[in-house]
Amino acid sequence: MADRIEGLWVALTTPLRPDGAVDRAGLARHSKSMMQNGCVGLVPFGTTGEGTSFSATERLAAVEALLKAGIAPGQIALGVGCPAIPDTVALTRGALALGLQHVLVLPPYFYRDADAQGLEDAFAAIIDGVNDARLRATLYHIPQVSGVPVPALAVAALRARYGLQVAGVKDSSADFAQFLAFRAAAPDVAVTVGNEADIGRAVAAGGTGTICGMVNVAPHLVRAMFTDPAAAGPMRQAIALMQGPFVATLKSILAAQTGEAGWSRVRAPLRAVDPAAGQRIAQALRTARAPEPVG
Amino acid sequence: MADRIEGLWVALTTPLRPDGAVDRAGLARHSKSMMQNGCVGLVPFGTTGEGTSFSATERLAAVEALLKAGIAPGQIALGVGCPAIPDTVALTRGALALGLQHVLVLPPYFYRDADAQGLEDAFAAIIDGVNDARLRATLYHIPQVSGVPVPALAVAALRARYGLQVAGVKDSSADFAQFLAFRAAAPDVAVTVGNEADIGRAVAAGGTGTICGMVNVAPHLVRAMFTDPAAAGPMRQAIALMQGPFVATLKSILAAQTGEAGWSRVRAPLRAVDPAAGQRIAQALRTARAPEPVG
Repeated sequence: MADRIEGLWVALTTPLRPDGAVDRAGLARHSKSMMQNGCVGLVPFGTTGEGTSFSATERLAAVEALLKAGIAPGQIALGVGCPAIPDTVALTRGALALGLQHVLVLPPYFYRDADAQGLEDAFAAIIDGVNDARLRATLYHIPQVSGVPVPALAVAALRARYGLQVAGVKDSSADFAQFLAFRAAAPDVAVTVGNEADIGRAVAAGGTGTICGMVNVAPHLVRAMFTDPAAAGPMRQAIALMQGPFVATLKSILAAQTGEAGWSRVRAPLRAVDPAAGQRIAQALRTARAPEPVG
Repeated sequence: MADRIEGLWVALTTPLRPDGAVDRAGLARHSKSMMQNGCVGLVPFGTTGEGTSFSATERLAAVEALLKAGIAPGQIALGVGCPAIPDTVALTRGALALGLQHVLVLPPYFYRDADAQGLEDAFAAIIDGVNDARLRATLYHIPQVSGVPVPALAVAALRARYGLQVAGVKDSSADFAQFLAFRAAAPDVAVTVGNEADIGRAVAAGGTGTICGMVNVAPHLVRAMFTDPAAAGPMRQAIALMQGPFVATLKSILAAQTGEAGWSRVRAPLRAVDPAAGQRIAQALRTARAPEPVG
């Protein structure tokens, strides 16, 4: 099993049944479709997957469904970060018990005035609580949503203390200077980038790949980011189409692309967007093209 | 059992054992001390009690310890709001199973761009999920910490839909205009105020009382707010002493007042403050006096 997340991983959206429960069969189908479209790994229950809106039981049951559908445990990194450290520990242990090693860990995100040392202490308490050398944690930096950062110096200190258990950082800040700060502070740590338009320059700067949301709806554009320096332009245009709330808009596009109503449902406090928006953006993405490779 | 929260309720701080677990015996002792000092009710695991840092199991075990120590179920309102609605529902059901009716409910607080309708939908989903007519929920407005408001119009709509199950709002915004907005939008709902300096004018404007943190360390000053219009000045001076992180500072004061080290411990991501700060503020509070009643 790979010690770090590399290449193209999808931050999976979560299809819902009419009663609001996770459509596990639908999630497995979408996961297989993503693997066929170039993804090498899956992150269920990240921000794109409304992870914080689902209980530990719901998340682990969904992982079990993915495993039963034939996804390998090494191809899954489960979103596990909760405000209460014991909850994060229990959920991470549950993931390891299912054979996973990779988890995506938000810092505790209620007390947003926590300082850098407090956040480092929190990650240390999580790793100590899990107490399993198989753990490969990717720390999740998305302060514009969670309200709390993953301090770059904390990543370095935790890597020095815990070795491979602190496997990576997912930088979803969309701030490339921050990406470079993670690379400089912790050069042994696998840094993946969330902003699809930055994939090319992130990999060129030593990043190991991406965990991203846009691949759910535009895999061809995201794939091109790995090979074609000119792909950033079309990628930015595609991202610019995503007006409104990101998660609900992404799901409305998937509903339009697949004809499956389960994609249009979100869990409160999110609200579904007008299906017409999904139809319109899906149409625009159909005609969006990565540029032809030169020569 | 009273249908609403009235008078002086304490937002309990949570003492910790050396291993970081809740000191349940210490919490029960502190609770009884608070009742002897004029409180008529207890809110364990609110923001002051680091509630979001504790698992459902930890919170319910602490409530059981309070009940065993002789606190009546009607004198307890448990903090239950989690980012995932099924978690809030399960914890609330656990509280009701122990005989409580009152719970303090944060809205889901990860997706901070949720709109008013989405937040109303979330509260409705929680109440529908609990599905128990005994529920007396107090909705918790503390947007400067949680990142998400309780919209006043949502309170009115939910009260119209669910009656007494939407028993109250705790307004911890420290914005008195917001308090008045809650009163105007939902006059049948019990509005308690978190900002101790506003207790007098809040009660005069129809508020039912307070759920507050300062009473943990300065019960005489908070009590005076209910009877003496001149008490707001000393109360503001006491609040001004609380420089630094509120929860950790409050606990350092309790450690100084009681000599019990368990009070100085906090759970990550919070960090303990310099004990000297607690000593200094405790000394200042000893000499702080509510003014003598006139006449």
